[in-house]
Amino acid sequence: MPLPTKTPLSDQLKKLLHRDVDHVDTPALVVDLDAMMRNLGRMAEFAKKHDIRWRPHAKMHKSSGLAKLQVQAGAVGVCVQKTAEAEAMVAGGVMDVYISNEVIAPRKLARVAALAQHLAASHGKLAIAVDSNEGIRGLAQAMDHARQQPGGLPATIDVFIEIDVGQGRCGVPPGRQAVELAQEIRKHPALRFAGLQAYHGRAQHLRTPQERRDVVTMVVQDVTFTRRLIEAEGVPVDLVTGAGTGSMVCESASGVFGELQAGSFLFMDVDYALNERDPAAPQFEHALFVKSQVISSGLQHAVCDAGHKSHAIDSGLPKVLPLEDGTELDYFNGGDEHGILKPRDAHQRLPRIGETVWLIPGHCDPTVNLHNHLIGVSGGLRHGKVEKVIRIDARGALT
Amino acid sequence: MPLPTKTPLSDQLKKLLHRDVDHVDTPALVVDLDAMMRNLGRMAEFAKKHDIRWRPHAKMHKSSGLAKLQVQAGAVGVCVQKTAEAEAMVAGGVMDVYISNEVIAPRKLARVAALAQHLAASHGKLAIAVDSNEGIRGLAQAMDHARQQPGGLPATIDVFIEIDVGQGRCGVPPGRQAVELAQEIRKHPALRFAGLQAYHGRAQHLRTPQERRDVVTMVVQDVTFTRRLIEAEGVPVDLVTGAGTGSMVCESASGVFGELQAGSFLFMDVDYALNERDPAAPQFEHALFVKSQVISSGLQHAVCDAGHKSHAIDSGLPKVLPLEDGTELDYFNGGDEHGILKPRDAHQRLPRIGETVWLIPGHCDPTVNLHNHLIGVSGGLRHGKVEKVIRIDARGALT
Repeated sequence: MPLPTKTPLSDQLKKLLHRDVDHVDTPALVVDLDAMMRNLGRMAEFAKKHDIRWRPHAKMHKSSGLAKLQVQAGAVGVCVQKTAEAEAMVAGGVMDVYISNEVIAPRKLARVAALAQHLAASHGKLAIAVDSNEGIRGLAQAMDHARQQPGGLPATIDVFIEIDVGQGRCGVPPGRQAVELAQEIRKHPALRFAGLQAYHGRAQHLRTPQERRDVVTMVVQDVTFTRRLIEAEGVPVDLVTGAGTGSMVCESASGVFGELQAGSFLFMDVDYALNERDPAAPQFEHALFVKSQVISSGLQHAVCDAGHKSHAIDSGLPKVLPLEDGTELDYFNGGDEHGILKPRDAHQRLPRIGETVWLIPGHCDPTVNLHNHLIGVSGGLRHGKVEKVIRIDARGALT
Repeated sequence: MPLPTKTPLSDQLKKLLHRDVDHVDTPALVVDLDAMMRNLGRMAEFAKKHDIRWRPHAKMHKSSGLAKLQVQAGAVGVCVQKTAEAEAMVAGGVMDVYISNEVIAPRKLARVAALAQHLAASHGKLAIAVDSNEGIRGLAQAMDHARQQPGGLPATIDVFIEIDVGQGRCGVPPGRQAVELAQEIRKHPALRFAGLQAYHGRAQHLRTPQERRDVVTMVVQDVTFTRRLIEAEGVPVDLVTGAGTGSMVCESASGVFGELQAGSFLFMDVDYALNERDPAAPQFEHALFVKSQVISSGLQHAVCDAGHKSHAIDSGLPKVLPLEDGTELDYFNGGDEHGILKPRDAHQRLPRIGETVWLIPGHCDPTVNLHNHLIGVSGGLRHGKVEKVIRIDARGALT
């Protein structure tokens, strides 16, 4: 199977290793490795304490290197949204991947089947979500076709039925339709009915713990209802998988969810930081930053070299880390390549031409997807050293 | 000078050539080459008729291949916003590049100087914008340093002073400060004062021609005032450069602007199409589309596989091209990887699972920057053939 190949790091990037963060050209996506490792440790501890599997979503970091780090810390594997992301993860050595999204095109299903063959040959595991008979039959056909090729193995794929638990996107409504899909899945020997996918995206950013708990209470009711209908037909529902960084405390306490898909905890972003934290949730820190430089300065404002080609603005503009002298700056939209900076208080200074400013992105997932590499710094963000350059090997993996 | 190297097209992409557009996996960025070439022809004709130079902004398409096509059609060269974009253009064979933005970091200025050396050796030309003494002195230092290296040529760089003509971003205010910067530039033998940069970004999207004319009238006053001050010191101002697709009719009629930087005309987008066209402006067509597929369908909505990792939403959501049977769909935000589709009229149908939908992006520049390739189709968007795969070789060129 032709998996994506690794391109070597450029000399320019290699030269950064073990140097001061000052040497990183702007704008650049920088990870505070110390903060990231603390977030990872807190997540692992949380999952252990609540005796729940965790399968972080790699759509967030899009890096097989970080996925492997998560597996080393105790994750069972990763989720992805796209076949091409799954290919990048497997090519990078991640052996347990779940495509938590619908795949319909026959050419893509052939790639899914090829991945399943590859993983079957190397003691790995592939799973996928479905919400239609078309999806199930296309998948079965592709899996059967791959089995019948010379050297084909009797590979299987775990199939989760996606339930629309209020997100209003993919998934069948809670109830009968899921029973019919489970029966359809069980007709095909290469497919194994593995359980239910139930993710409520909007619940993640409800600001108070009570609002999030109220929504997840309804999610749990929907899932329990559907699960009972399926089990009443004598079909076991092995696993319910879902949850995000905002709501995971609720799912993990539900007794119904067996696996958490939270991804953003690793980096955090401005949008997640606006949530009022549930006292039962780990305290995650910002670990993802855009390093930027001031390139112009007027009487009322300064301009930095990071606009929305450097960070996504779908969930709001970035926040500026206070300058070392305590100056607080606000970031205003300056278009694709620029950010407008103004002091929060009139008596505070403007940053100087050439000065470094650190931005905290509004939304980590699409921000990471703009960059080819993450510059990993340890020993403090502002004065640390570049410890590793992390390839975002599933960047732009859209298909 | 180590310029970026070309990675060969993957076998998967090569296989697309000369095949039906049906073979393009979704989501993908597809260019209607016939529409694009008509847009290009109309721009060339417009510039010729008004006897004005055009230097389209390559920050939009980020492709050296398309830049060369524009030069073949009569453009004098291209603009870019970033040093790394300039490097990608020169590596791709574009020999006249203007960085219409401020560059401050000494390491980047060394790269600018290296590019100037490279272009001086190959009869090419480099230009840059400045708005501070820091910028001018840093640039002069880097240029001098490159000259003094073994094999260094007496290379020069054209320097434009950026005037803030109301955009409120980079640039000095119209007036005295520009005179002082011009004098500073002239102290340095490697720098040639080339004129004024005057671009009003927000004017591009004022919806009526009259509003755009009113703003550009003020821009022209500011530029004329500043130009006279500089010329009163005996310093000639050779060129005023600026304008975008929305306002270029006004700048070209001003008698003051000598060069147009419009870039979006090549592809157009939803935001530009919302402008009421000036009768004197060419009629540009949509040429950029995201090919997407329906992967889920409910009672009230369908879901396609293109979200804001496939298209930028900073200037609004994409529009859906009507289906072939005339069905009109509205696109609602479904997050990073999904779009929610609903029929505009209650009596119209939902698209089926597996059906192709074509999206017109809200804003072309940051949309192109999400993709590695443009799939060029001729003979009609829906049923044409893939004629070329265009590498977006300055994608992610941020520094």
